[in-house]
Formats: sequence, structure tokens, C-alpha cells
Amino acid sequence: MQELTKLLDSIRPLDSNAQSETEVLINDLVKPLGSLGRLETLAIQLSGIYRNTHWTVDRKKIIVMAADHGVFDEGVAVTPQSVTALQAQNTLYGLTGVCALAAASHTEVELIDAGIDCDPINGIRSIKLYRGSHNITREPAMLRSDAELILSRSAVIAIEAAQSGVEVIGIGELGIANTTPASAIVSVMTGVEPNRVVGLGANLPSDKRQHKVDVVAKAIKMNRPDSTDPIDVLAKVGGYDLAGMTGLIIGAAAAGIPVVLDGFLSYASALIACQLNPYIWYYLIPSHVSAEQGAQIALAHLDIKPYFDLEMRLGEGSGAALAMNLIEAAFQMKTKMGTLSANGLDLPEPR
Amino acid sequence: MQELTKLLDSIRPLDSNAQSETEVLINDLVKPLGSLGRLETLAIQLSGIYRNTHWTVDRKKIIVMAADHGVFDEGVAVTPQSVTALQAQNTLYGLTGVCALAAASHTEVELIDAGIDCDPINGIRSIKLYRGSHNITREPAMLRSDAELILSRSAVIAIEAAQSGVEVIGIGELGIANTTPASAIVSVMTGVEPNRVVGLGANLPSDKRQHKVDVVAKAIKMNRPDSTDPIDVLAKVGGYDLAGMTGLIIGAAAAGIPVVLDGFLSYASALIACQLNPYIWYYLIPSHVSAEQGAQIALAHLDIKPYFDLEMRLGEGSGAALAMNLIEAAFQMKTKMGTLSANGLDLPEPR
Repeated sequence: MQELTKLLDSIRPLDSNAQSETEVLINDLVKPLGSLGRLETLAIQLSGIYRNTHWTVDRKKIIVMAADHGVFDEGVAVTPQSVTALQAQNTLYGLTGVCALAAASHTEVELIDAGIDCDPINGIRSIKLYRGSHNITREPAMLRSDAELILSRSAVIAIEAAQSGVEVIGIGELGIANTTPASAIVSVMTGVEPNRVVGLGANLPSDKRQHKVDVVAKAIKMNRPDSTDPIDVLAKVGGYDLAGMTGLIIGAAAAGIPVVLDGFLSYASALIACQLNPYIWYYLIPSHVSAEQGAQIALAHLDIKPYFDLEMRLGEGSGAALAMNLIEAAFQMKTKMGTLSANGLDLPEPR
Repeated sequence: MQELTKLLDSIRPLDSNAQSETEVLINDLVKPLGSLGRLETLAIQLSGIYRNTHWTVDRKKIIVMAADHGVFDEGVAVTPQSVTALQAQNTLYGLTGVCALAAASHTEVELIDAGIDCDPINGIRSIKLYRGSHNITREPAMLRSDAELILSRSAVIAIEAAQSGVEVIGIGELGIANTTPASAIVSVMTGVEPNRVVGLGANLPSDKRQHKVDVVAKAIKMNRPDSTDPIDVLAKVGGYDLAGMTGLIIGAAAAGIPVVLDGFLSYASALIACQLNPYIWYYLIPSHVSAEQGAQIALAHLDIKPYFDLEMRLGEGSGAALAMNLIEAAFQMKTKMGTLSANGLDLPEPR
């Protein structure tokens, strides 16, 4: 916990001087003031994170946290549990959705075994303590000390990536049944009842949704997580992939680089991370609106507005992969465009 | 008109066999069925347009139509009229917003002089008949025969691009005061009163909006465009940039390649084009929600739902430039991902 506390304490607010400088720079670009909308605010946010206006985003990387979940045994998913390991392998081969969309945005992908129910997979880095979490309807997902260990280890992965030259991290996950613990986290952290938060995950038949709601409610009732203690929530009703994503968020913020969210699982992780240190919020870059039922509830509580809605619900970091294009666009905007001053122009402000 | 009629008559409905084949292919990709949402429907649409499943999108190009507008004299814009020519030159130098965002999506940009109020600019292709349209509050923007000529010439530009290997065309525009004729077109084509359609364009002060509404209303009253005759509408209350964009849409559809819309001006052009031949609708790829006031009215009438909303209102094809990334992503999805069948998986359908 000491290492984690040190990391959390090291996270700084954004550099407001760098933000102001970038705002001045953008207001001189040769276009009507404000006309590039949220691309402009994105560029300003990135300058605040990087603490200067001269950042580049040549190296973008999505880190996918993969783990299995004991609660799978409750019949909350229709995909076989072995698909977690299979898709981890497919990610290594570059065959999953996130790999395809990352190729379209010139983004690297690395998958981490955070607790897959399988033997070590050759070529896949592991921070695994156990082959999956416990069944949260019967006991806590993991020990608090194990949650802290995964948080630290995954934060270190983000920090090492930043040290090796990665300028933007995106987060993704892989874990059959993981929308169940994610729903439990969102329900506890937002105070919204499971019935409004639980969705169909990976094509759960709609007549089985009520059962999933009951499982989430039972897990919360059984574990009594303390919503004011985010690590307690993560350890009791979370999972190792969620802990890994939360650690990546913490590590990116500690390293002073932006972290691009994905869908529902990333929202749950961000809720945990931001309560551990509210400065983390400023390092988050949203991507898409997840099609999962509880997405809007989590987003409203996070006070985050995604950039696009393609009705996607794959996870894996696929939404983050698409958002990397917007970061590249914000970079090109601030770097390539001519200026009003060089053109002798003085255009009016909106009023 | 004969050439234009021939072009319009040559536009075919999409190839439903290619679409079905692609649907089968996508349903076998290694992911939960339907989980890539609108990227999946985009890939299916593209297969219908290209009439096969084996399309590539290596060459993407945005064509920017630039022209001036006589109605500028009515005080409907606060940017100097000379900025059209200046920004045309800046586009040639790669310094405008669309150039920056196109660089971020590996898209070519070409600007066409469709009627800028300036001498010919070295290096810029011209289809210009006149240095700007007439003031639509006093007379028609142009002769019907001139509108037809610009439609044909710009359609030919799209067709020649396709013949030279361009696989996707995006459309953009540059023209100080052009949201005024665009608002007039949208008002006439949707039957919605100018007051609900007219917005602030490039930072018109909000206290001058009512004047712009009055100008649009006067232009419509004075010209009495026939909403059932889209070329009449275009010629009477449109402009040369709008005619050029409409021609590009027609040409892309005639050449059998997709055409990516941009913002408000592109919606106005699409309203004209789709009424000339309703099959054209199937060739349109939306991009962003323009921040212009009448955007939602035009989009609802077009029955088109953009992919993202970044509160952008620059025009130039800047939104189309960003959407090129989604087309690339749809391509990578269908091309790079592994299959369920190769993995021996049979995942359940949503129900």
C-alpha cells in the first residue's frame, strides 16, 4: 500500500500555464474562433497534462487487462469462460477487434494477464496472482492486499510505458462475465440500484437480465463494500481486470501522460481511480458511449462526455483505439495550421 | 442538362448481394455478434457501394469547393469577403483546418475554385464561371443553365478522381457568407421557416441573427424557388460552392464510390442531390453533427445520423476528414480480425 499511496500522492493538477499558452496559440489559428469545438479543448487539456505546448503523440499504446471471474459460475454470461484465454492469445496474434481498430489509428496493443484462468501464455506479460477472482456472490473477489498489489503492478506498467516513450495510453479489458463486477462497482460508487445499471454484456438473452441484476444485488449485499473506500469496493465486488485498468489509470496520471477510456469497464475503473485522487479526472480522455445499459449512469457520475457514439459494446479497448485518431487530429491542428497573425487577420469573437 | 441527366440516370441502388456477403463475413468475426455497432453497418454499406466485399480504402480525398456570394453585401457575415481567396491559397499551402485534420487521417485535399471573387490562383483547378453568385435578396444566385454546368463539371471532377484511383471522396467548402444560401436551401427543401434554420455561421454576433433570418426570408420570397425542382432551388437561392458540392455527390454516386458529408453546407447539398435521385442517399457517409442551428433540421429531413459530435463548425471538410478514420477502421475490422469458425466458436445471437 505504501508504494500505491506514494504514487497517488505524486499526481499533480494540470499545468494551467501550459493550458493558457495553448489557448492563445489555438485562438490564433487561421479559422473562426472556437470553430474546432472539442478538438480545441482536447488540445488544451493535453497541454495541461504534458505541462507544455510542444507535445507530440507519435507513440500511442493500448494496454488490455485480461482476467477471469468466479461469478461466471452464476450463469451471468453466455460466452464460454475459456474465451478469455482464447482471445488473449488472439490479441497476441493481432486478430481481435482492438488490434484491427488500433491498426487504423497507428496504435500499439499489449495484453497483460492480470488473472486469466489458464497456464502462463508464452509472449504475454503477466501480473497474475490467481487464476481468476472469487465468486462475489459468496465471498470478496480478492483480498484487499491483492487488490493493492495489482493496482501497484499495473500502475508500474503504465509508468514504464511512459518511460519507454509511450505518449498516450489507452485502456482495455478482456474477461468473460466482467460486466457483472463492473455493474456492481458502478452501482456502489454511484448509489444507483443494480436494476438500472445492469445490462446485457456480450449478448446475454434479455430474459436472463433479471437474474444478473439479482446476482449483482446479492454480491453487494453479501460483501457490504464501503462506497467511501474505493479499494474496498474494488476488492470486494470487482475483479483483476478492473483492478488492472484502475492501476493503469493511476500510473498514467502519475507519469503525467493522458489515459484514454474505453467503455463500461473503463468507466467503473475510472470511478474507483478518481475517488482515490480527484486530480486523476483531468488526465482522462473519453472515447465512446458504451452501448451497455448503465453507461449513462456511470458517465453522468464521472461528469465525462464521450466524443462519439457508434453503438459499440465490444470492450477490449476498441473505443479507445478509435479515439486515438482524435488525439492525433488535435496534434495536427495545433502543429500544422497557419495563423491569423501571419495572414494579417483579426476575426471577431463569438458573442 | 443532357450530360447531367445521363449521370443521374446512371446511379444504381447498392448491391444487396455484396451487402449480405459482408454481413455473413462480419458475423463470423471473433467478437460478440453485433458488438462493433455502427462500424459493422458502415462496412456493409461500403460493400454495397463498391459492389463487392474486397474493397480497400487506401486513397481517400477531400475536395473543397470554394466560391463567393453576392449576399455578403447584406451584412450577413463578419469575416471579410477576401478571406475566401486567402483561405483557398492557405489550403493550397496545406495550412487550413481541413489540411491538418486530413493529415491525421492520411487523406488528400484538393481545393477547386468554383467561383471565388479573385483572379485565377496558380495551382488551383478552376471550374469558375463568375467571380461569385448574385445577391439572392435581389435576383437569383445564378442562371439555371449555369447551375447545371457547375453540377456537371464538379460531377466530372469526382468521376475523374475515382478513375484515378481515389476510393473515397469527402466534400468540403469555403465561402464567406455561405451559411446564408445554405440556410435558404434547407428552409425551402425541408419546409421549415428560416427562423428555425438560420444560425450564426462563423461567429456572427447573436444580435445580428434576426437580420440574417430576414435576409434568408427575403431571398426566398423574392426568388420563389420551387421545392419540387431542386435545381431551381440551387440556382435561385444557392451558390457556386453549394452547386459544386452537390455535383461532387452526384459524381461520386455515379462513379460508385462513397461520399463523406461534412457539416451544414454539405447537408444542404445532400438535400438537393437526394431529391435529384433518391438512390444517392445510399452513397452518403455521415461524419459529424454541425454546431450550426439548422443542422438537426437538415439531418432529420435527410434521415441521416452522424457518427460524432465535437461541436465543430469550421466547414472546409474538417468533419469529413475525421470520419475518414472510421472508414479506415471499418476496413481494418473486416480485413484483420480472426474468425469464430477458425476458433471453433459458436457464440449466441442477441435476443
